Amino acid sequence: MTVKIGLVGTGTVGGGCLDILKNHKEDFKRHYGVDLELAGVCSREPEVAEAYGVSDLFTLDFNDLLNNPEIDIIIELIGGTRVAKDVVVGALKAGKHVVTANKALMATCGEEIMGLAKEMGKDIAFEASVGGGIPIIGPLKNQLISNGIKSVMGIVNGTTNYMLTRISQGLSYEDALKEAQAKGFAEADPTADVDGFDAAAKIAILASIAFNSRVVMDDVFTRGIRNITPLDLEAADDLGYCVKLLAIGRRCSKGVDVRVHPTMLPKTHQLATVNGVDNAIYVVGDAVGETMFFGPGAGAGPAASAVMGDVLEVARRVEMGIGPILGCTCTDNLPIMPMESLRTRYYVRFNVADRPGVLAAMTKIFAQYGVSVHSVMQRGQKDKDNDTVNIIYITHTAEEQAMRNVLDDVKALPGVLYGEPSLIRVEK
Amino acid sequence: MTVKIGLVGTGTVGGGCLDILKNHKEDFKRHYGVDLELAGVCSREPEVAEAYGVSDLFTLDFNDLLNNPEIDIIIELIGGTRVAKDVVVGALKAGKHVVTANKALMATCGEEIMGLAKEMGKDIAFEASVGGGIPIIGPLKNQLISNGIKSVMGIVNGTTNYMLTRISQGLSYEDALKEAQAKGFAEADPTADVDGFDAAAKIAILASIAFNSRVVMDDVFTRGIRNITPLDLEAADDLGYCVKLLAIGRRCSKGVDVRVHPTMLPKTHQLATVNGVDNAIYVVGDAVGETMFFGPGAGAGPAASAVMGDVLEVARRVEMGIGPILGCTCTDNLPIMPMESLRTRYYVRFNVADRPGVLAAMTKIFAQYGVSVHSVMQRGQKDKDNDTVNIIYITHTAEEQAMRNVLDDVKALPGVLYGEPSLIRVEK
Repeated sequence: MTVKIGLVGTGTVGGGCLDILKNHKEDFKRHYGVDLELAGVCSREPEVAEAYGVSDLFTLDFNDLLNNPEIDIIIELIGGTRVAKDVVVGALKAGKHVVTANKALMATCGEEIMGLAKEMGKDIAFEASVGGGIPIIGPLKNQLISNGIKSVMGIVNGTTNYMLTRISQGLSYEDALKEAQAKGFAEADPTADVDGFDAAAKIAILASIAFNSRVVMDDVFTRGIRNITPLDLEAADDLGYCVKLLAIGRRCSKGVDVRVHPTMLPKTHQLATVNGVDNAIYVVGDAVGETMFFGPGAGAGPAASAVMGDVLEVARRVEMGIGPILGCTCTDNLPIMPMESLRTRYYVRFNVADRPGVLAAMTKIFAQYGVSVHSVMQRGQKDKDNDTVNIIYITHTAEEQAMRNVLDDVKALPGVLYGEPSLIRVEK
Repeated sequence: MTVKIGLVGTGTVGGGCLDILKNHKEDFKRHYGVDLELAGVCSREPEVAEAYGVSDLFTLDFNDLLNNPEIDIIIELIGGTRVAKDVVVGALKAGKHVVTANKALMATCGEEIMGLAKEMGKDIAFEASVGGGIPIIGPLKNQLISNGIKSVMGIVNGTTNYMLTRISQGLSYEDALKEAQAKGFAEADPTADVDGFDAAAKIAILASIAFNSRVVMDDVFTRGIRNITPLDLEAADDLGYCVKLLAIGRRCSKGVDVRVHPTMLPKTHQLATVNGVDNAIYVVGDAVGETMFFGPGAGAGPAASAVMGDVLEVARRVEMGIGPILGCTCTDNLPIMPMESLRTRYYVRFNVADRPGVLAAMTKIFAQYGVSVHSVMQRGQKDKDNDTVNIIYITHTAEEQAMRNVLDDVKALPGVLYGEPSLIRVEK
């Protein structure tokens, strides 16, 4: 029998899927006995379907695919949480399996969608939603499933990792962003990447699986890289650290700690060598210990590799006439730890007026809130235009709430602070 | 329903499995609806069963487990290819699923065992046979399955990787081995590790899956690390390389190139940072590009993590009443490329008599076989006891057969060569 697929979305990843299908359709039959057949293509760009010679399968209306009783699997690759949700929910309700790369959708409506899939006895697969081509959801749900997962932590946004790599080479944030946009690594509106929302969606998905407890995007404390300067990365480097936008999920005794923020990592950490647009996810389990999954986090080929891996897995079950094997595994209802109670070390840089008494006033505030200072230094050149200098504090382990109080009080010092402080949490 | 398992072998890994079962039995029920029950334990050590409080399930005869109609899954952890084969074959014939960590068995009798499993409609799972706790067989058979795999290459033997790390820090081969044995990383008889046979079994398994063509251990060109000295690692380091015992499988236009040998890798390669007993496997696919899987290659917890991951996967299918989903995928019959036709660069160190004419005689032999020399250097101190020096050649790309001819002819020079040359192939 053939397994018929309908593709919704023919952008970068959709094109990658069509390429894989073209290159390997016969291999899939010979090696795995899976005969995939493209039965419908929907997008707003008929020219892509034409370029792939599948104009006869093209439609502008995704409902044509959902209403086609022959289609077994719908691949949703349009992204976002509006039309994409209509496609995914509609496909499941129409009794079709769904494969999606949509992290935002799964990180906001995962419970509803997985519930509906269960109700309909259909598969919802989303390996491509995290880490591009890197196998990570599969290994967490299968090979690592006998572990109590202690933490899952990763560089899951290639755009910001590329930008941080370039800023560490001396580019300003603005120039790094422009370069990333020119190379196609960043979108015209870079908000989702640079402010950490893309990474937040991904860690919500990973944490939900790793800790068997639903984590949604809104649960994730999220800070981006807008305030990071070459000076910060240079100072970190001198201290033996690199700076990464880390997505962190950690099982605590009382619940789940889940967050995205710029993080100082010791250069000896496995994740420290991951540069440019590459992604890597680091998983610690109680039996396996420390493992890492590395690879390209985005791009046509990598994302399509993950999508088509899911398609083949679902297609094998369609051929065997069996339903989903492992659906939603969020059986626990663990509390999300309040960010205010986080205990970690901090790097914080203030751009302040260069005048007597400023350093003493700031240091007094740290003492007042019990934030013990490990070291303080003045870095970089004095800014002659506005007569400011950069003061960097490295703290001992302190509570997030105390650190926030310090920031608030420094901000309230009259005429002292210029711009936003650069706050980087330090990971052991 | 409960899924009943029988454990054969209670060594390090078997103990790890009993630990996982004890720690997470209730979690498996709650999270995945899988109720695992230990129904039999067989080994030569009744004291282990006693220590785990399962003496009532203990037997010295594995046939007691195979003949127990209640047992669904047999876990084989005794290793080797004799009794272990009787257990695995016997279990499949008795209609039981099998989970094993046995790389030697799968790399020599994989075809027969997978054929029998198919015939019986039972699962044979062996994730733990390669890379310890690192998920690699699962990802190759699932998330990466839509790729044409170009190469799979890895550090898959922790013992030799630990020894090479220590030799690079100045220890002799002998001292590194003694230390590895003292730490429990190497066996009393270290042959399987240091001569590369363990790695050969693992790459045979990985290549079979990656290239959809059966590769057995005997197909793998295998060289170990016995001739590697601190001098070699120091010279490599100066040239910008590290030396790893790499297991390499590569899809060529005409077939499969599969080998294990000490390899010089650029220090910038992802695998270069993998030190000590850690393992890492690097997979290149035509869609995904370059991915890497890193983690602990051995030990009770890691190996048991993989074994119990397999057990849970099979147990879910037992509960659903369905058979194996993807058995043997070796549908092609690709030729193994003869090692003699390999084209690569070589590092070769000769310990030779320190007398006039020796260097000229050797260099003439390189020229005679058309092996173009990139550089030649004398390294290290002159050995005053036997009046020898070390001469190191780095070649341009040459054919293996030509390089072998060179070695044979240098060996035949009267009174020139002392000991075995140290030959290290250079990977780009």
